[in-house]
This record gives sequence, structure tokens and C-alpha cells, in this order.
Amino acid sequence: MFKHEKQLLKDVRVDRINPNYANMMQEQIGGAHGELKAAMQYMSQSFRIKDERIKDLFLDIASEELCHMEMVATLVNLLNGHQVDAMGTTAGNIQASVQTGLTPALTNASGYPWTGAYMECTGDLAADIISNIAAEQRAKVVYQYLYRQINDSGVREAIDFLLNREEAHNTLFRQAFNMLEETGSLADWGVTQDSKQYFNLSTPGQYFDQNNLSNPKPPKFNIPNQPNQNQNQWQNPQNYTMTH
Amino acid sequence: MFKHEKQLLKDVRVDRINPNYANMMQEQIGGAHGELKAAMQYMSQSFRIKDERIKDLFLDIASEELCHMEMVATLVNLLNGHQVDAMGTTAGNIQASVQTGLTPALTNASGYPWTGAYMECTGDLAADIISNIAAEQRAKVVYQYLYRQINDSGVREAIDFLLNREEAHNTLFRQAFNMLEETGSLADWGVTQDSKQYFNLSTPGQYFDQNNLSNPKPPKFNIPNQPNQNQNQWQNPQNYTMTH
Amino acid sequence: MFKHEKQLLKDVRVDRINPNYANMMQEQIGGAHGELKAAMQYMSQSFRIKDERIKDLFLDIASEELCHMEMVATLVNLLNGHQVDAMGTTAGNIQASVQTGLTPALTNASGYPWTGAYMECTGDLAADIISNIAAEQRAKVVYQYLYRQINDSGVREAIDFLLNREEAHNTLFRQAFNMLEETGSLADWGVTQDSKQYFNLSTPGQYFDQNNLSNPKPPKFNIPNQPNQNQNQWQNPQNYTMTH
Amino acid sequence: MFKHEKQLLKDVRVDRINPNYANMMQEQIGGAHGELKAAMQYMSQSFRIKDERIKDLFLDIASEELCHMEMVATLVNLLNGHQVDAMGTTAGNIQASVQTGLTPALTNASGYPWTGAYMECTGDLAADIISNIAAEQRAKVVYQYLYRQINDSGVREAIDFLLNREEAHNTLFRQAFNMLEETGSLADWGVTQDSKQYFNLSTPGQYFDQNNLSNPKPPKFNIPNQPNQNQNQWQNPQNYTMTH
Amino acid sequence: MFKHEKQLLKDVRVDRINPNYANMMQEQIGGAHGELKAAMQYMSQSFRIKDERIKDLFLDIASEELCHMEMVATLVNLLNGHQVDAMGTTAGNIQASVQTGLTPALTNASGYPWTGAYMECTGDLAADIISNIAAEQRAKVVYQYLYRQINDSGVREAIDFLLNREEAHNTLFRQAFNMLEETGSLADWGVTQDSKQYFNLSTPGQYFDQNNLSNPKPPKFNIPNQPNQNQNQWQNPQNYTMTH
Amino acid sequence: MFKHEKQLLKDVRVDRINPNYANMMQEQIGGAHGELKAAMQYMSQSFRIKDERIKDLFLDIASEELCHMEMVATLVNLLNGHQVDAMGTTAGNIQASVQTGLTPALTNASGYPWTGAYMECTGDLAADIISNIAAEQRAKVVYQYLYRQINDSGVREAIDFLLNREEAHNTLFRQAFNMLEETGSLADWGVTQDSKQYFNLSTPGQYFDQNNLSNPKPPKFNIPNQPNQNQNQWQNPQNYTMTH
Repeated sequence: MFKHEKQLLKDVRVDRINPNYANMMQEQIGGAHGELKAAMQYMSQSFRIKDERIKDLFLDIASEELCHMEMVATLVNLLNGHQVDAMGTTAGNIQASVQTGLTPALTNASGYPWTGAYMECTGDLAADIISNIAAEQRAKVVYQYLYRQINDSGVREAIDFLLNREEAHNTLFRQAFNMLEETGSLADWGVTQDSKQYFNLSTPGQYFDQNNLSNPKPPKFNIPNQPNQNQNQWQNPQNYTMTH
Repeated sequence: MFKHEKQLLKDVRVDRINPNYANMMQEQIGGAHGELKAAMQYMSQSFRIKDERIKDLFLDIASEELCHMEMVATLVNLLNGHQVDAMGTTAGNIQASVQTGLTPALTNASGYPWTGAYMECTGDLAADIISNIAAEQRAKVVYQYLYRQINDSGVREAIDFLLNREEAHNTLFRQAFNMLEETGSLADWGVTQDSKQYFNLSTPGQYFDQNNLSNPKPPKFNIPNQPNQNQNQWQNPQNYTMTH
Repeated sequence: MFKHEKQLLKDVRVDRINPNYANMMQEQIGGAHGELKAAMQYMSQSFRIKDERIKDLFLDIASEELCHMEMVATLVNLLNGHQVDAMGTTAGNIQASVQTGLTPALTNASGYPWTGAYMECTGDLAADIISNIAAEQRAKVVYQYLYRQINDSGVREAIDFLLNREEAHNTLFRQAFNMLEETGSLADWGVTQDSKQYFNLSTPGQYFDQNNLSNPKPPKFNIPNQPNQNQNQWQNPQNYTMTH
Repeated sequence: MFKHEKQLLKDVRVDRINPNYANMMQEQIGGAHGELKAAMQYMSQSFRIKDERIKDLFLDIASEELCHMEMVATLVNLLNGHQVDAMGTTAGNIQASVQTGLTPALTNASGYPWTGAYMECTGDLAADIISNIAAEQRAKVVYQYLYRQINDSGVREAIDFLLNREEAHNTLFRQAFNMLEETGSLADWGVTQDSKQYFNLSTPGQYFDQNNLSNPKPPKFNIPNQPNQNQNQWQNPQNYTMTH
Repeated sequence: MFKHEKQLLKDVRVDRINPNYANMMQEQIGGAHGELKAAMQYMSQSFRIKDERIKDLFLDIASEELCHMEMVATLVNLLNGHQVDAMGTTAGNIQASVQTGLTPALTNASGYPWTGAYMECTGDLAADIISNIAAEQRAKVVYQYLYRQINDSGVREAIDFLLNREEAHNTLFRQAFNMLEETGSLADWGVTQDSKQYFNLSTPGQYFDQNNLSNPKPPKFNIPNQPNQNQNQWQNPQNYTMTH
Repeated sequence: MFKHEKQLLKDVRVDRINPNYANMMQEQIGGAHGELKAAMQYMSQSFRIKDERIKDLFLDIASEELCHMEMVATLVNLLNGHQVDAMGTTAGNIQASVQTGLTPALTNASGYPWTGAYMECTGDLAADIISNIAAEQRAKVVYQYLYRQINDSGVREAIDFLLNREEAHNTLFRQAFNMLEETGSLADWGVTQDSKQYFNLSTPGQYFDQNNLSNPKPPKFNIPNQPNQNQNQWQNPQNYTMTH
């Protein structure tokens, strides 16, 4: 059962209206890596999970993502102001001005409607949790792109909160992953010869060899080591050169 | 530049025609976790990667996924036989009989056309590689479902090969992930208080607490420990009870 | 803010597994007139409503539709049983057997993923409320079709509840509509000559004339007159001949 | 059988070319509430209707909506001028300049192709007619948004005509609704206790109580009372403050 | 302006109800090569054509394709009978039984909604006419597939008519193509060295050489030589072996 | 089997960054007539072709279209520069700045994801080859539109090459068409009376008469007559007035 409370999970505000940026923020409502996608993915996955710990975690986070969507929609609302004015916008879709009367729609920044094709749900716990870890990582990246393109202190404050919550979710999904051991699709990993071959199909260049496959190592995830610092490096634009 | 060789990456055969199963196999041509999705995702991601080791890996695997798609399409072809006969099928879409003249289409098992909405591409190496690890895990799961529902020795042999190749790719993506260190979206993980809160929004029940978040642990991925055994446990139906 | 409680809004049960009917029930999870569509539509509309009475109503009902989706998903879960078996199904999509491991997906009965294109949101209260009245009427019709095609007493009990709740919502939207008076898109209705012409573009036959347009009458909605009877006529198959 | 006459239903003209506004007008060709959607919806519904009065009405209006689409397409054509020039546009999609050579496409203002997912067709006369009433109301709202954002006298004249025709259709669908009495999905409305409960799931606030549900009132639709005035209030910008 | 007449372009009948085949016939209503696609494509293209001969031809045929859609919808209607019964069908989508109450929907045989993505419209007469020639050829092929899978004399009679009409359209588009001479995208064909190279990228095997490109020949289209025979060879099943 | 070589089919360069034009170029990566569509269409068709000459041709060209996609993606990459900056763009979608971190996505110029609905594949050689001829003609037209809207010498050089390659493919498909003779869907063309009627459904005006249909002529395709001139007329802007 879902219940709604009028109070936002965290209040939001903006310095000033900015319809172009409102269009950009749409990406985190109805985009491929947005809040609705996350909420729906975890909720749908939870529908069949038996492990009560993991089911609870998925529903905790699914509920929070709905709260996030509500926060982002409130931001879009505030940024849009009170005039339908497609001619006055240059970035992104114009559906707010010609279709929805400035109501935040369930579309991405280009006006493409949200689709269930974004969903990653397999019924296998390992595959679903790794998919969620990846989804949270992508959501963080989109918030980083959005953060870099706005100076509004209210919007930045909201993004900072939302981005860090995605990290919290990610950390929790990683914990959940560790409960699985070698069950489901993790069982019997890499036991046939076929799983140990490297096919060098793009030439020139081969940087990974057979040994990596015969004697594989698990991925290392970094661990936070600056607790309570309350400051993310990515907030400093100068730390933010695109390296590729 | 892409070049094609008539020789399949690995030859395939089927014991007998089976149009229903041909429909099911469509899932791995044009489905959400199918070969085309994998090929396109890695290829698209590679378009902007600067690190030559990772770019090469992505293109090696993207090329192989195209080879896989070709193998699956050949299986579908053989399974379909020579008669358009929608009335004679019960499982899945009937597009092969009414639209494509039995040509393997770029759709999933229900006839839904492949869509770029399946793509996960962020331009951030960490997010992209984790997305690929997750994609390979899901692809493996779909092959497991398909394997369980067919007795045809030719089909099973092909699935066994393809499934183990997805494991090989997965292992390689894990290796690549370890090269990243704390760059891009992995930097400054979980340093604010916001990233250390647990919001218990689904009640009753809470199985993860604040400590998990203040002192997070990386996910443990299992390591193969039965080299050269050449036999996957999941091939034995009796080992295959759905636990949820 | 959204919170989740593990308790369903109303418990559901089924007499027996029925994977074909599980496919059919998918229509009310992710179909064009299903519960997700209703929840999303009312929630999205509510994002910009200023009138606190109507905003509250929309969020009450949006929340309940999420509860309904959870109930339908539980039904699908129970009906699906524990075996992926695409060969054993004849009705509808086979994604449950080849993609989601029997997890209820956000698709319709044919496996088509839910799309934001189903949304009706204009930012005009009159247009949005009438759209919701229409949406509830369509949702009821789908439940009627589903009811007629199943004998399972558990499923029928659940559908009876859900169908009557759609009527409750519909009644409430009608009340809300009456608050609007002649505001927004209801203002100045039919005041130009252009709005009073009948163009008879399909021939032969014309059954509505100019007088209907010059002197229009409001639509009459029927009022319940059999309180507490606790029995819907449409539950008797013999009352259910399709008249067209 | 459909026949075409070269003469437009009503001639259109524009004061000057305006490629940005051409993009915006696309919304009423291939958008969610546009002319194609209306034409297709009524036509598809009519395919199975037995009541000859209602079938005729639906086909009269479906035909007229095709005429409207032709008018809007002519407007788009005139507004686009003769130069493909994506760089020179700022509002909306650029498909006209890179794909269709300025031919009016079947997309919305953001370039999203028309989809059958917009269709509302249930085979139940009550649900279909209410859906059509709602569709006409939404179409009017979109025309209002478009009207407010253009000064071109030719475009405004065309919109005024089209908007009023949607009102005429709406009035006719309301008349048709009154013929249905308590048939189909209107029968036995609100007779169980389940249909009389109010679930207050969004807090704080409840503005509708049980009495509304136990003793429901039909929706009141306003009736035109300013015949032949030939002037719509919404044409005066000062009457057009967004109230939410 | 479009007008509708109640009389079908050609009456249709069926020997008996056949809901499975009704699903299959949906392909020619809302499928990729169906009647709606053809009607919309030619109509959309016509919106910007200046040459009055070609504009008239496109609108003649667009109108006829709408008439065809109406005929196919009538066939679907008759084949569906009067019972929603998803359990009783095995071929194709079940939307007719769970969503549309047997009303012919604008979807293909698998329930996928019609999409504007099927449209081929470039604003270049040569490209558009060749696209239409190709579209008619594909439509014919789908009718051939449908014809082979049904014995119903009424359905076969209708398909025979519709298929031959597609040939008539095709013939007319070929005539129109001959009016273009070397205009638009046909101008300056193959004048650079780049247009004369053969890149042999799939090996082994090369069956076309440079000479074909340096000295190209136009495609030869066959000409009917059995006038008035009133019998198509493809109607004899024995003439209908799939050669690939 | 597909293999990749790091070397582009032909190197590309740009004079300067141009994010707006990068958006426009997206049309030829993931648009309806773009390189991915061509590659996928010919590859999918090839999956079931028996004639080894035609199968080889289709795979030669499919492979080359993948090479083209890689070239266009490289152009987009160079044009995008190094700053996500949605506010700084005015033409087309902003997904590069908010979602993909400037990675070339598989979408069209408006951000609409590539869809398998673009595919034209019937399993009939004649229909497929004519479809390919049409597809190449449309691809050329899109390149012409793009060429006209850019002065960058690097981009123009690349477009010139790509456009001429589409002509080469087109010429080869025409040759392949001539091998078919009267097989498949070309057999028994226009032999019934139904295929010889002209239905004049758009009035006034009829410019094609019955004789065209009773005595049809094949389409004439023009033949290059200025070999080695190495200069396309369409490159001169003054030759490029839109005639409709």
C-alpha cells in the first residue's frame, strides 16, 4: 500500500525562473536514468522477491525515488514560471508550452515520453541488483551534468541532495549484493573453456589477455574515506574537465 | 571499419524445426537484453572513449555481439522451417508469418521492435562499465530461461556457448572496471551526510542500518573455482528450482 | 512524499495458477487503461494544481491506483506459478517466460511496454478532470472484459473490488468537475457561429441537427438508485450480451 | 468509403513565414491531442458500432478531423517557407529541416512520431463517448495555448475556427451520451459498498466525504448563454491569466 | 476536404468467424506495411507537393487506402464474432479481448500500436515515389502471406481485390516516376569516383564488379503480358514454394 | 562473423566545433533514413536469403553502412567539442548535454531513439530490394539537406563521400533487382481487371487514365552520362532551389 504526505521529502526552492533549465530537469523526471525509471524498476522487481530483507530494501528505495520525482517536478514547476512561451525557449522540448500548460510531464528533456523499455527486470536477484547499482551510477552522472550547467543556488542544493541519495542507494544495493553469495545467475561462473577465451575482433590492439579470463579478479569498488567532509569534489568546476 | 566473414563465429544446428521456439529465441536478437542491444551499447559507448585499452575492449566485444546476433538469427531461421503458419504457433508474436516471411526480425519474443531506449550510455566510464556488467548478467539470465525450455541438442549447444561468452565478457568488463580507480563518477563517493542516511519508507521492516552507509563495504563478486570442469550446474534441471 | 506499507490495500488470492490469465491481467498493470496509467496521470496532473481540494483528491486517488497496481501484480504473481513455460501458454505475450522470470512487468497483455504516450495532462483543470472521468470509465470496461473471461473466485473477488473502486473515483472526479463552474477551457462555450454548425460529412444519414448545437443540452449522467444492494448486474453472464 | 476534394474545408492563410511557429503547430497534426488522433480515434471506434445514429456521428466528425489536419498541415506549410534551416530555428524539433524537406510530418512539436498509443477505444459506447468528450476538451486547450503565442492574423483566424469546431464536436458527443441511458458500462453504477468508500491516502487534507459517494451527483456541464456573440473571451489576453 | 460514404468501396463477407485470423488481419490495418501506413504516407507527402498531377495521384491513392482500411476493419469485425475470449485464441495479440471489446484497433498482428516511425516522407519527389513503389510491393507481399493461410472464400475474395489494387497503385506510381526525369535527388547520378567503387566488405565472395558501377544499367520492371486472364498464379498453393 | 578495424573507412575532420550541427548530424546515425537503419535492414534481410550473390551484396553493403555510422559518429564527436552545454544549443535535441556526456547516441536529430519500426523486411527479394533502392534514395536526400546547411569544409567532404556511396549502393541494388526476373511478388503482375482500374477519389483532377494501367510502362531510371566529372551539381547552392 502506498500513502502520500503533502510534505516533500526535502523542500526545494529556486533563485529565479528558467524555462530552458526546466526542460533540462525533465530528464530526471521521465528520462532513461530518471527518478520514475528508478522507482518503477525497483517496485516492479520487488513484486516477486521472496527474501524479505531485499524486498524491503527495494521498496524503501522505490518509495524514495517517487519522493525524488516529486521534488524534481516541483523544481520544474518553479523554474517554468507562469507563461507558456515556446518561442522564448531554446533548449529542449517545447511540450510544456504547447501541450501540458507547464505541468511537468513524464518525458525526458527532448519530450520523449517515458517508456517501460527503460526497465531492467529479470527475476534473478543478482542480475537485478547489479542492474540497480548501474542505474544509480547513471542517475548520479546525469545529476552531475545538470549541476554543471546551472548556477541557481536552490537548484544546486536540491541536486546535491538528490545526487548523494543516489550514492546512498548505490551503497545499499552493493550491501544487498553481498548477501547473494553464489546463487542464481552467479552460480558456476566461468567454468567452461568458452568462458575463458578472448576473441580479439577489433584490430589493432589487445590489452586484455587469456590470463585475465582464466584467473579472473572481482571488480574493486572504492570506499569512501572522507567521512563528514560534506563537500563533493565534483562541485568544483575546475575539477571537472572531461577526460574523454 | 567493420568487415564481415561468411563463416559464423561458431556453427549452429538444430535437431528439428520448432516455430514456437523460434519466436522465443527472437528475444535474444531484438529483446531488451539481447545481442543487438549489447552490440549497439558497447559500440555507441566506444565512439567517444579516449582510453585506448577500454575502447579496444568495447569494440572487441561489440563485434562479438554482432557475431552472436548472426548465430541466433541462424538458429531462428533453422527453427522456423519453410512455412508461414501463424495458426500453427501458440507462443509469442506472429510477425514471422504475416510480415517478414520467416526472416528473423529485430524484435523481441512478443514482436516489439528493438528500440534505442534500451541503450545505457552516459559518457562516464564507470557508469558505462557497470552498466555493461549488468547487461551481461541479464543476457545470461535470458539464456538460462531459454535453455530450460528446450530439449533440442543443437539449440542447447549454441546457448551453452553464447551464455559462457557473456560470462567471459562480464569478466573482462570487471577487469576494465578495476582500471578506473576513483575517477569520474566514482570520485568522492559518499562523503556528505546525505549519502549516509537510511530512509525507512516501506514498513514494517528494516534490515539495513546506518552503519552500512557510514562504513560501506564494496560488493564481493564471486571467482570461478572450478576451472576446466566444462559443465555448468544450471544445465541440470533439478538444480533449477526458482527460489522466488 | 510517498510511503509504502507492506500490507496490501486489500488482500488477494487465487483458486489456482493460470499463466494465460496472468498474461491477460497484465493489461491492468501496464496497459493503456491500467492502474499505472491512472496513478501516473493523476500524479503528474497534481504537480501543478493550485486548488488544494482538487490537488488532494488527485493525490488520494493516484496513491490508491498505485495500491491497485500492487494488488494486480500480486494476482499476476500468484497466477503465474513457478515455471517459466512459454510453450505452455497460448494467450498473450511470453515475456514472463523469456525475459522477466515471471516477475510482473510494466507491459500490457501483449507485452507492449507502458508508455508516457498514454498520459492525458493539459494543465487545464476542466480538461484534466474530464479526461480522468473518461479514464476511470475505460478502466472499468477493461475489468468487465477480464471478469467475463475467468471463473476463479479469488480473481473475480479482486476484480469486483477494483472495478467498484474505479466507480468511486469516477464519482469523485464528477464532484470535482462541478466545482469548476465556467472557468478555464469551459469558459465561453459555443458562442461563435462556427461552434453551431453541423457538417454532415458522412453520407447517407444525419441524426443530429443544428438545433442540437444552437441550444445544446448538458450530458446526463445516471445516478445510483440501488444503494447497498451489493450486487452488480454485470456479474451475471446472461446480462452480458454485447449489443454491438 | 472516403473521398477527397481539393478544396479545403476552410481556406487558410498566414501573414508571414515563421518556421518556429510551424514547429509548434505540428502539435495539432501529430500530437497527443491533435487532429490525426481525433480522426483515427473516432474512425476506429466507428468500425464496430451498431447504433446507426452514433456511427454516423462518429464518421461525420472523424471526416471533419481529417479536414482539420489538412488545414493545419497547410498552415505549417505556409509558415515553413522555402528554406531548410535548422540553425535558424529555436523552438521544437528540427526534423522539417533534416528529414522531411519541410513537408508537415505526422509528429508532435518535439518531433515525436504519432503513435496508436494515443488511441482510446474500448468497444463500450459510454466509455468511448466520454473519452471523445475529453479528447475534444484537450484539443481545445492546445489550440488555446497556440493562440496565445502567435500574433499572425491568418493563423489566429484558423485557430479560432478550429477551436470552435472542437466545441461543436464536444456538444454533439454530449448529446450522443444522453442517448445511452444506463446501458453498457453505465449500468448499475455505484451499487456496492466498495464504490462508496473514500480512502484518504494523501495527508493532510480531505475535502470530499463519504456522503458525496453515497449520494453522488452527476457532473454539471455549462450551457452556452451568449448566442451569436461571435467573440470568445479567451481571445483577450487580459482574460488569460493562468490560475494555477 | 475528406468526405465519407457509408457504402464500402467493395463489399466484404466471411464464411465464418475466426478470431485467430482476425488477429492476423490486423497486420493490414495497423502494421508496418498496412493500409493506414499507406494512406498516411501518401497524404502526408501530398501536403507539400506543387506538381498538380502528382499531388492528385497521391490523394487519389491515399483516399483509396483509407477505403481499404475500412474494408479490412470490416473483415476483422466479422471474423471476431461476438465473444471476447482471449483464452480461445492462439495466434497473435489478445488486445481485442482485453482492451477494445473486439473493435479493430490500429495495431499490427502482435498488438503493437501503429507508429509514425513507419512513415517515409522526404519532400523529394523521386525519393518519395520510389518509397511508395516499395511500400506497395511490401503491402502486396503481406497480402500474399495472409492469403496462403486462410481458406475462407470471403476473405480470399477480399484479399484478391485488395492485392490487385496495390498492384494498380504500384503501376501508377511507376508512371509518375517517369515524369520526373533527372530532377531533385535523381540529378547528377553517379558522377564522382566515390560512386563507382565496390567495397567488398563481406568475404568470401564478390559477384558484382566495378563495371556494374562505371556503366550502370537501370532496373528492369516486368510488364504484364496476360491481360484479362483474371487469375493470379500465386493463388495456386502449388506455385507457392518459398525459394529462400 | 563481424570484425572491426580501428582505421575508419575514410578519415574525417571538421574545421571547428559546432554542437548545433552535431545535433543535426545525429539524424544520419539514428534517424529514420540513417546509417544504422540501412545497416540493420540489409543485415536482417540477409539472414534468410539463399541466393549467394544477393546475400553477399547485402552483407557487403550492410558492413559498409556500419562503417559509415562510425564515420558520422566521429564527426558528431568532433563537432560536439568538450563541454556539455544545453543552454548553448538551439537546434535539435539536448540529450548529448544531459544524458550521454556528448557521446553520439542512437537517436535522430530530435533525440528520438532509433526503432526497429524503421525496418523494411518482407522475406520477398523483389520487395526487399526495391525497399533498399528507396532507402538509399532517402538517405541521399537527407545528406543533401545536411550539406546545404553547413559550410565546414571537413563536414562537406565527408558528406560528399557518404552521399556518393549511397548512390553506389543504389546502383548495385538496381543491378540486383534485374536478376530477379518475374519471381516472387513480381510474378503475374497486373493480370486481373481489379489491377487495371483507376479510382478517381480526389476531385477535381485526373491526370492518369485507364490506359496507363491496361498497358503499363516500367519506370525509367536515369543513367549517369558524365563519368569522371567528379563534381555534383547539387553542391552549387544556386542549383538548389526547392521546387515545391
